[in-house]
Amino acid sequence: MKIQQVDIKLYHVPLKQPLQDAIHGVQRDFSLIVVSLTTDDGATGMGYTYTVGQTGGSSVAALLEDNLAPLVIGEDPRRTEHLWNKMWWATHYIGRGGIASFAISAIDIALWDLRARLAREPLWRYLGGYDSKAEAYGGGIDFHLSIDELLRQTEGFLDEGLRAVKIKVGRESIAEECQRVAAVRSLIGDDKKLMVDVNMKWSVEQALRASRAFADYNVYWIEEPTTPDDIEGNRRIETEGPTPVASGENLHTIYEFKSLIADGAVSFPDVDISNVGGITAMVKVAHIAEAFNRPVTTHGIQDLHVSCLAAIPNASLLEIHAFRIDDFLVYPLQIVDGYAYASDRIGHGVVIDWEKIESHLVSRRSVSNGIRYEQTPFADSLA
Amino acid sequence: MKIQQVDIKLYHVPLKQPLQDAIHGVQRDFSLIVVSLTTDDGATGMGYTYTVGQTGGSSVAALLEDNLAPLVIGEDPRRTEHLWNKMWWATHYIGRGGIASFAISAIDIALWDLRARLAREPLWRYLGGYDSKAEAYGGGIDFHLSIDELLRQTEGFLDEGLRAVKIKVGRESIAEECQRVAAVRSLIGDDKKLMVDVNMKWSVEQALRASRAFADYNVYWIEEPTTPDDIEGNRRIETEGPTPVASGENLHTIYEFKSLIADGAVSFPDVDISNVGGITAMVKVAHIAEAFNRPVTTHGIQDLHVSCLAAIPNASLLEIHAFRIDDFLVYPLQIVDGYAYASDRIGHGVVIDWEKIESHLVSRRSVSNGIRYEQTPFADSLA
Repeated sequence: MKIQQVDIKLYHVPLKQPLQDAIHGVQRDFSLIVVSLTTDDGATGMGYTYTVGQTGGSSVAALLEDNLAPLVIGEDPRRTEHLWNKMWWATHYIGRGGIASFAISAIDIALWDLRARLAREPLWRYLGGYDSKAEAYGGGIDFHLSIDELLRQTEGFLDEGLRAVKIKVGRESIAEECQRVAAVRSLIGDDKKLMVDVNMKWSVEQALRASRAFADYNVYWIEEPTTPDDIEGNRRIETEGPTPVASGENLHTIYEFKSLIADGAVSFPDVDISNVGGITAMVKVAHIAEAFNRPVTTHGIQDLHVSCLAAIPNASLLEIHAFRIDDFLVYPLQIVDGYAYASDRIGHGVVIDWEKIESHLVSRRSVSNGIRYEQTPFADSLA
Repeated sequence: MKIQQVDIKLYHVPLKQPLQDAIHGVQRDFSLIVVSLTTDDGATGMGYTYTVGQTGGSSVAALLEDNLAPLVIGEDPRRTEHLWNKMWWATHYIGRGGIASFAISAIDIALWDLRARLAREPLWRYLGGYDSKAEAYGGGIDFHLSIDELLRQTEGFLDEGLRAVKIKVGRESIAEECQRVAAVRSLIGDDKKLMVDVNMKWSVEQALRASRAFADYNVYWIEEPTTPDDIEGNRRIETEGPTPVASGENLHTIYEFKSLIADGAVSFPDVDISNVGGITAMVKVAHIAEAFNRPVTTHGIQDLHVSCLAAIPNASLLEIHAFRIDDFLVYPLQIVDGYAYASDRIGHGVVIDWEKIESHLVSRRSVSNGIRYEQTPFADSLA
């Protein structure tokens, strides 16, 4: 069995309303890069990655089209370790994270989808099958909202079936952040999980003061309290403050997670299979975290992550991120009483409705045995 | 003063003969991405970056064209710290190294060229002017050569005026590597510097055995003895073996260099302005290294690096890399009695002969006030 064709589509998906956090400014859309693999005997797999806004979208697509697709064509898709290492070393000089990790991730996810489909297994069970569901939380990108709007957003999360929420923080005034945290805590009651996300905005001393202040409101974690490049700073916030640290969406290699975890700088490693190197890398991070007695949470693309968290014994919360693609999915994610349920279809079970998302298409390319076709219509079997 | 236009050209430059190291396989060409900036009052600056083979070339160009060029247009080119941070944070999610660092580097180099030209100063003096020259060495990519061929290459380096050489190692048999090292040592005599480069191939224990074996031949440094992601492993090789460690060409942020240096894992931090984030980042790495009593060496693009090493007080050797663009330069680098001399023209003084390199052009794009022109002929003033 050999990979015969790689199809790459780049979309710019608009958000329903502009969103804002402490560091990334106003966000109006995100790039979605979808990779479809087809083998010589007709087996298929689909994976995707995404970027914040449009930054990097075309760059990820170019690396996939010009460099990674030709590397995997002709290869056996079941040999995920071989292919992952082939892609890692081929891109190493310009890689070790960054855009290369996003591109590798998209292909790796498609490979695991294909493998699970070949095995006629749903991904959550193919990866170990610890549980079939994951506790979920609503991740607001709500830095710009008034307290009233924040409470309406929270009510919306509860209406969706969620029982845990996260809000954005990162202002200069910690007193003002405490007012926002207090308002949400008051609305949801004492027994639900409430998290805050700094998006790297604070210094170590600001984050430590905030960690102590947030303890009055039983904050479950403080996410990315300072820059992820300061591991010692994160370790101080984690160990000297009362609020546990979550971090990882900006770490794109297993080595970066190893450092953060082994240096005692995080309670909740926060993995994203679309930027850490796919499912191959995510499983390794989860195993490292398990050995260090840490539960793993996920960032973004809940539709895929639900099957990954459901598979492992050390799952923490699944983020229901505000960059949603529900409108373009044939089978949107099901959330009941605080839990998201992994798909029981074969593979990861995320099926894109190509017609519904077509209007957001920016470019498409098919690479087949080294020949690249622009604007090739996709085969129906990939849908 | 505002940046008005950004021109981006991607070249695939063939090597005169195929080259090989222990990890990257046979190399036949490299991608060269050249960025030219023009301000509203006609000031210009030029920068470039490169990749190993063609991998990542089009991806770097896409990020420059679609995301970074629009960010710097309309900005004052003299505010390099403002622009560097703007580019760093705009690409942070898909960045923190990798392809984003290559793209940022190309623009940052062009900004420093423009600044020095505005000041009517040569770059080496504009950056501090410690010296006007740098001790140089010939960096062979010669893993595939027989010992006879290796010696002929070494004679070539000596004929060019070089007085220090580096050879590739990384075989399973350390005895075989010692034969190659001994042959070169015997040819050049006892008083010249001789380095070896593993290109990350060995495990820590292999590298330590080699470090001890190479001590018999007075090897000046062992470069990238193991993967750069294993800082503790590099620290062991550096501190437990007799041969000092050089490393850094695969580190693309100041934070990665900080860890390697502060953790005592390197004697010779090896910086490359085309992948660490340009001259802005290189100067910071040099200052960190200076505070830790470490001399800095450089990787590749000697034509630009000569001016950077000449500027700082803690300069070690300048690599004369085998990816050369001498044939396309109006004023090729001058090497006399083991030293390379920084250009005394204003700016970095590297002037590309656009006609000579034209046949290797893959794509070009001009971005001007948000409008992108394909295939726009370059203004003569940029040459």
